[in-house]
Amino acid sequence: MSMLKKLDYADASAEARAVMDDIKATRNVPDVNNVWKVLANDPRQMKQFWDEMKAVMAPGGLDALTKEMIYVAVSITNSCEYCIHSHSASARKHGMSDEMYAELVAVVALANKGNRISTGYQVEVDEQFKRY
Amino acid sequence: MSMLKKLDYADASAEARAVMDDIKATRNVPDVNNVWKVLANDPRQMKQFWDEMKAVMAPGGLDALTKEMIYVAVSITNSCEYCIHSHSASARKHGMSDEMYAELVAVVALANKGNRISTGYQVEVDEQFKRY
Amino acid sequence: MSMLKKLDYADASAEARAVMDDIKATRNVPDVNNVWKVLANDPRQMKQFWDEMKAVMAPGGLDALTKEMIYVAVSITNSCEYCIHSHSASARKHGMSDEMYAELVAVVALANKGNRISTGYQVEVDEQFKRY
Amino acid sequence: MSMLKKLDYADASAEARAVMDDIKATRNVPDVNNVWKVLANDPRQMKQFWDEMKAVMAPGGLDALTKEMIYVAVSITNSCEYCIHSHSASARKHGMSDEMYAELVAVVALANKGNRISTGYQVEVDEQFKRY
Amino acid sequence: MSMLKKLDYADASAEARAVMDDIKATRNVPDVNNVWKVLANDPRQMKQFWDEMKAVMAPGGLDALTKEMIYVAVSITNSCEYCIHSHSASARKHGMSDEMYAELVAVVALANKGNRISTGYQVEVDEQFKRY
Amino acid sequence: MSMLKKLDYADASAEARAVMDDIKATRNVPDVNNVWKVLANDPRQMKQFWDEMKAVMAPGGLDALTKEMIYVAVSITNSCEYCIHSHSASARKHGMSDEMYAELVAVVALANKGNRISTGYQVEVDEQFKRY
Repeated sequence: MSMLKKLDYADASAEARAVMDDIKATRNVPDVNNVWKVLANDPRQMKQFWDEMKAVMAPGGLDALTKEMIYVAVSITNSCEYCIHSHSASARKHGMSDEMYAELVAVVALANKGNRISTGYQVEVDEQFKRY
Repeated sequence: MSMLKKLDYADASAEARAVMDDIKATRNVPDVNNVWKVLANDPRQMKQFWDEMKAVMAPGGLDALTKEMIYVAVSITNSCEYCIHSHSASARKHGMSDEMYAELVAVVALANKGNRISTGYQVEVDEQFKRY
Repeated sequence: MSMLKKLDYADASAEARAVMDDIKATRNVPDVNNVWKVLANDPRQMKQFWDEMKAVMAPGGLDALTKEMIYVAVSITNSCEYCIHSHSASARKHGMSDEMYAELVAVVALANKGNRISTGYQVEVDEQFKRY
Repeated sequence: MSMLKKLDYADASAEARAVMDDIKATRNVPDVNNVWKVLANDPRQMKQFWDEMKAVMAPGGLDALTKEMIYVAVSITNSCEYCIHSHSASARKHGMSDEMYAELVAVVALANKGNRISTGYQVEVDEQFKRY
Repeated sequence: MSMLKKLDYADASAEARAVMDDIKATRNVPDVNNVWKVLANDPRQMKQFWDEMKAVMAPGGLDALTKEMIYVAVSITNSCEYCIHSHSASARKHGMSDEMYAELVAVVALANKGNRISTGYQVEVDEQFKRY
Repeated sequence: MSMLKKLDYADASAEARAVMDDIKATRNVPDVNNVWKVLANDPRQMKQFWDEMKAVMAPGGLDALTKEMIYVAVSITNSCEYCIHSHSASARKHGMSDEMYAELVAVVALANKGNRISTGYQVEVDEQFKRY
């Protein structure tokens, strides 16, 4: 059960409804997903998060699919079940196949392993890498 | 200081040298970086990690740049200094610009934030997301 | 299902019962919650954890509500469902409102984001911050 | 060395300078700290992060000191050296004493321990906690 | 629900079946557990993970029980429910008692606490520890 | 620089000195390491942590070396530089060889990888594992 109750459109404030309207229009979906219904209890935080989501995840130097996959990679690393499911769904809409998902998991798994090899041996950063 | 001492080519075993040779040839670099010199103390683990790195990071359903950026995203989330530097260097070789790096950090930051919003409110996974 | 079975008062050892009695008296509750029933399998660890909990979470330089909110902030960051629920319940008893919870989540989310911005860019600590 | 070079006021764009001016005025400091100088390479992200920082960390249902301490608690848990130093400095300005810092660390340490006890035993959430 | 569907032996490819056969023979079990059935969608990753698991977890300088307990310790720290259950089951087969599990949890809890005490106070590494 | 200054024996309170005396006697060392000198600023927390360390890390169902290696495994996973160095030094005293350390790192790396494979695919816990 969520910590604050989910607010449907009918129960949401005018400010929260405006955000819901924008989400539905932007994503072309009939209803918003649960995280937004819970965030509707705090319309300012809801609007701030949505504005940031919309701006950061939009195609730019990186395309939308790459961004969604990076989001999923972080969510797997942090063990966030909700985020893995919701952003994988989003990545699927942008064209991620089963094969691509398997490769994504393989890289995330390898990176989590490689991180502990470097940390476990306390390897010093090579001079030539310091400027990156 | 690393936990085990770095072994240069001259001090490495035949098995470790073979891996070093393959790394240098595959990446077209004059010498291997520090993590491999430390791993040279355990040639079996060194070879296993290199074989996996070579196979997993090779272009497939995802291109090499996307994979390197996913690797960096995980490394930032886990706070692995060595891995951030070494794999950012690798991503640069594959074409990552300053602008792309800034977008990568923005997505990683947003995902780490979004993960805690979903977890903090204990939001339930929407029915339509469960199959992804 | 928990890894060791929950022991009710009737099934617990004398040492575990003494801890249960102290928890019930201190918190003025009719029964202890599940984590203590599981810990009752190891009365020494149970007593050590309870003594520390009682001492550390008691009002001191920081009041009890602030301490419970800090506990929840850590639990969200680590994705510990049990701890989020049980310590939010405790924070509620000490006066945390829905509004305060929403602000707590907003700060936790921002900090997790800010941590990755600093780490992602490998920002050096400013001279004037080093003594803190 | 930071991943992107630090931009001083003289080298920053007009948009980045505007954010720097607001930070200096809001905090009443002669110069901005390093994270902002690095973020100046990406003025949009810089402005977004600053606007959020200013809004979220402002006193509301929770006072500014409590918010800074929660920020530090998360930063310790994530092992973010820069954030521990910079936000402890900020908490100090809002009145945090050595004694309060020691209590903060004690709660963060206890929570990280308690999280693993609950997770290690896979303790089920008590019915009465589910609505929180 | 898993992200990719579980493949039973009858539905798996020849390459995946070969891995399943080896798992069943090595562990002397009638069927493989769920993680392998999901990995069967990507036989290469499946084979790579199994080969590594078999090699790394085999008795060497450390015995199999110690290795399984270290695996569980990491899994608790990362909050991986699947891994806690599956590798605890494995540790049980190698002789882990209830008492030993309680001690394992106590060490994991203490280490997670001690990590934050050292990080929270930003304690400098002692000269005499640097070579380890 | 540590957040609170290190207190040498001469500057410590009577209560902190008593803990220092016990550490030196128990470990048979001429001086305590840095974490205790910093904790000497808060003698109650110092004594609590030392009492727990002494009790939990003592040989019981698990021997002292196994416990130190589990402590290191957690510290690598959490990226705690101080703890990796100090508890590896301790494990060395209890007999950990270079070979054993390499195996420890290999297991920690594999577990961190395996955790993300299970989480990435959202694998369901097998019925037969639930009671462990």
